[in-house]
Amino acid sequence: MMDATTPSEQTEKRARAGRSARREQRSHGPQGLGRPYIVRNIPTYDILSEEGLIRIEETADRILAEIGIEFRDDPVALDHWKRAGAKIDGVLVKFEPGMLREILKTAPASFTQHARNPAKSVEIGGKSVVFSPAYGSPFVMDLDKGRRYGTIEDFRNFVKLAQSSPWLHHSGGTICEPVDVPVNKRHLDMVYAHIRYSDRAFMGSVTAESRAEDTIDMARIVFGEEFVDANCVILGNVNVNSPLVWDGTMTTSLRAYARANQAAVVVPFILGGAMGPVTNAGAIAQSLAETMAGCALTQLERPGAPVIFGNFLSSMSLRSGSPTFGTPEPAVGSMVIGQLARRLGLPLRCSGNFTTSKLPDAQAMNEGTVSMLAAVHCGANFILHSAGFLDGLLSMSYEKFMMDTDFCGALHTYLDGVVIDDNQLALDAFREVGPGNHFFGCGHTMANYQSAFWDSELADNEPFEKWEAAGSVDAATRANRRWKKVLAEYHAPHLDPGIDEALKDFMARKKASMEDAWY
Amino acid sequence: MMDATTPSEQTEKRARAGRSARREQRSHGPQGLGRPYIVRNIPTYDILSEEGLIRIEETADRILAEIGIEFRDDPVALDHWKRAGAKIDGVLVKFEPGMLREILKTAPASFTQHARNPAKSVEIGGKSVVFSPAYGSPFVMDLDKGRRYGTIEDFRNFVKLAQSSPWLHHSGGTICEPVDVPVNKRHLDMVYAHIRYSDRAFMGSVTAESRAEDTIDMARIVFGEEFVDANCVILGNVNVNSPLVWDGTMTTSLRAYARANQAAVVVPFILGGAMGPVTNAGAIAQSLAETMAGCALTQLERPGAPVIFGNFLSSMSLRSGSPTFGTPEPAVGSMVIGQLARRLGLPLRCSGNFTTSKLPDAQAMNEGTVSMLAAVHCGANFILHSAGFLDGLLSMSYEKFMMDTDFCGALHTYLDGVVIDDNQLALDAFREVGPGNHFFGCGHTMANYQSAFWDSELADNEPFEKWEAAGSVDAATRANRRWKKVLAEYHAPHLDPGIDEALKDFMARKKASMEDAWY
Repeated sequence: MMDATTPSEQTEKRARAGRSARREQRSHGPQGLGRPYIVRNIPTYDILSEEGLIRIEETADRILAEIGIEFRDDPVALDHWKRAGAKIDGVLVKFEPGMLREILKTAPASFTQHARNPAKSVEIGGKSVVFSPAYGSPFVMDLDKGRRYGTIEDFRNFVKLAQSSPWLHHSGGTICEPVDVPVNKRHLDMVYAHIRYSDRAFMGSVTAESRAEDTIDMARIVFGEEFVDANCVILGNVNVNSPLVWDGTMTTSLRAYARANQAAVVVPFILGGAMGPVTNAGAIAQSLAETMAGCALTQLERPGAPVIFGNFLSSMSLRSGSPTFGTPEPAVGSMVIGQLARRLGLPLRCSGNFTTSKLPDAQAMNEGTVSMLAAVHCGANFILHSAGFLDGLLSMSYEKFMMDTDFCGALHTYLDGVVIDDNQLALDAFREVGPGNHFFGCGHTMANYQSAFWDSELADNEPFEKWEAAGSVDAATRANRRWKKVLAEYHAPHLDPGIDEALKDFMARKKASMEDAWY
Repeated sequence: MMDATTPSEQTEKRARAGRSARREQRSHGPQGLGRPYIVRNIPTYDILSEEGLIRIEETADRILAEIGIEFRDDPVALDHWKRAGAKIDGVLVKFEPGMLREILKTAPASFTQHARNPAKSVEIGGKSVVFSPAYGSPFVMDLDKGRRYGTIEDFRNFVKLAQSSPWLHHSGGTICEPVDVPVNKRHLDMVYAHIRYSDRAFMGSVTAESRAEDTIDMARIVFGEEFVDANCVILGNVNVNSPLVWDGTMTTSLRAYARANQAAVVVPFILGGAMGPVTNAGAIAQSLAETMAGCALTQLERPGAPVIFGNFLSSMSLRSGSPTFGTPEPAVGSMVIGQLARRLGLPLRCSGNFTTSKLPDAQAMNEGTVSMLAAVHCGANFILHSAGFLDGLLSMSYEKFMMDTDFCGALHTYLDGVVIDDNQLALDAFREVGPGNHFFGCGHTMANYQSAFWDSELADNEPFEKWEAAGSVDAATRANRRWKKVLAEYHAPHLDPGIDEALKDFMARKKASMEDAWY
């Protein structure tokens, strides 16, 4: 925001833009085109009883008090815990029941993550739902070239595809690993790509404290130092090294984000039977324990810093020993996690369109739909992996990305639920049409048809004969055509040339200060 | 049941077998293999407020009182309504608010549909969930031969595939139209195929009153007259001719089933914008009005007869005018329908794996999964179209059938929810493993792994390299191989030769009494 206004004027401008965007979204009809994020109009699906939730919370408390969590390679974290009154034994930290809940009281229940385009800022918490692309694949794939390592060009392509979709709300983070850029420098190119090719909110680097700090420095160039200190403009997705270990790489990054008043997303990745027990209730209790500890650490670093309660539950094929995704256990587990997060009063992150399928086929969309609906039903405010996930998180698929964003569109309508008013109840239409006649041309239909139904751009609803005459094209092939069209039509959003120059200078200086590292 | 026991002994034998089957299902672990039906362990997903539900009920009441429903070509139905106090004007019947609800008080909230194998009888109502194959397609398709008209051989194949799946609970009805058998005789072959090739409960003919009666006569041969009069052994799926018309073909069949104490499934098929308004709340109100009238008619025919509250909501692509399936509006609409059915105290039928896709591809399973999960979440007790549906109900797909039944398996685990007990909470496992170690070989894992996770027989969870080395096979091709293997391994369940002979005699006599009709 290198313009003539003061930071507080900027804040007010942003707030006004956000309000007007929220007003606008109500006038867009059920398809919700142009909403910066979704405000859910259906309740969460609370599947576990109060009694069951209490049993899980008690188990988490006992894990924390009796077994404890190791905080490795981060003396500052240990120091925080010591001052907070935890029991320290080497790197093992034990927490009295209730202690973490007390610390977490300073964390906000909801916060705004600002985008560089204020109309695209997102609310994270309460009834808001934000869809963000998949994160972290080393490979990319498409139907033409198959699977190969991701490059910075692929990374930019996915940022552009995300920016072009009206059904995503966030630019994501490490959409794929750009393996053609040195490991120690690629965070700069990734963050720059999000800022340059998207005007939505995004996620920064977490693979080293210095890289988290570089991300925050680049955000300061875009938003101004004072604005960044007072507002969340970046999320950093940090993983627990489950079971019950927090690694210094992650906690130093987590603390860097919290210190700068930016939001860590705290995520245990629990593959039941490997990093957690094979039983769902136990894995959920573990997830709760690990997440509470991580979230609380942000509050010790900077009370009041925004933080997101995350989770990533997965099961295992016990015939092959392979991880499975989109299966029933994580789906119902997510819904319980949602209940637990709400009892803590923290914004919730869940994972979206999971699958182990290697192709954008029937398996991919069955598993993806199960897990995405679980994320939506459980009340997740921030849904990572909403689009593109294939092959157990190893591949980012161009075709699956288009299928998933289309489904994200359908979910806008889904989350609107059934609206009740005189027009929707349509008593006059029945009077007009009467028994045995059709509603095609009636006044009520004419007045409502334009916003009546979700209309997928990717699904084929044509009669068989018409579909056959057009070449019997399957969903994957349609998606293949679509991403090429969308990329060809992409236009970059405006970026202030002064900011662009400053970002490039920053990156050049940083890159010049390091030798290339490739692993 | 042509054995030496009396009908009341038979009833007791059946009841005992049913109880033992229900006891047995609790010992089968989360995968639920061998359950005759599911008893849900998660609540229904109630998405609409009490206030919203009341507005819909009031609208349905006003439709019934002010606009009315036509009952065409069935003087007996009109006579029933007259005696019940409705206002009759020609074939138009109007109902005072509350009148239908009062009549419906005699309908049971739950009932058993008996199978010829008593261990496979299903409970319909309350917390029970019964999966039944798709119904009514004129075409069948598979990857080898593409789409073609269904034959009696296809029909038998699907009965055999259903019987072979541990994840379906019901043999269904008109799984596909056997167009190589004359229209006026094919109901006999279909009913016989269900009895001969399956030992599960099934659905009978509804396309004429005489065909409904033939179905019931065949059931009497299998179960005995007295047993049939006292117990439900057949369902008949009758459709409203929406909007607001009940056709004589349907009401005479509905009354034939009710008269014989068998269960009509009362289903308005509302394609929003055509047979109902384009707005969801209005379509739901219409569905409620039409279903209440049909269900009430069964109670006038025979108070206390079992009846199922059904619905079939669908939307329309307003670009092409084609029906759409598996879209968000019917999904959220189904959940509201579920709430309304529970307020009436009637068992609920919803529809399962819907899609307009012409192939068993990504679109098919995305749309199918959305609608199947809605059916499961809304509390449906009987889910028709659980397997095989493709091409907007025009095709029964061999491959989709295998994909869908596999998903039905996953839903057994899903509906078990998160079980809470000491073993599931696994505190001892955390004590045993501790921070930073894996759970692979720990005692808790060894004790629980066999029943731990849903393990699909169709999904590929292997690493990419292994999958590629095995030929890069997609989900549809795996399903194609699987249905062939299952059909090849099929064994017919035992059928008493005396009963078989009596059924064949009955069919031969009936067929000899009619000229072939082909339309």
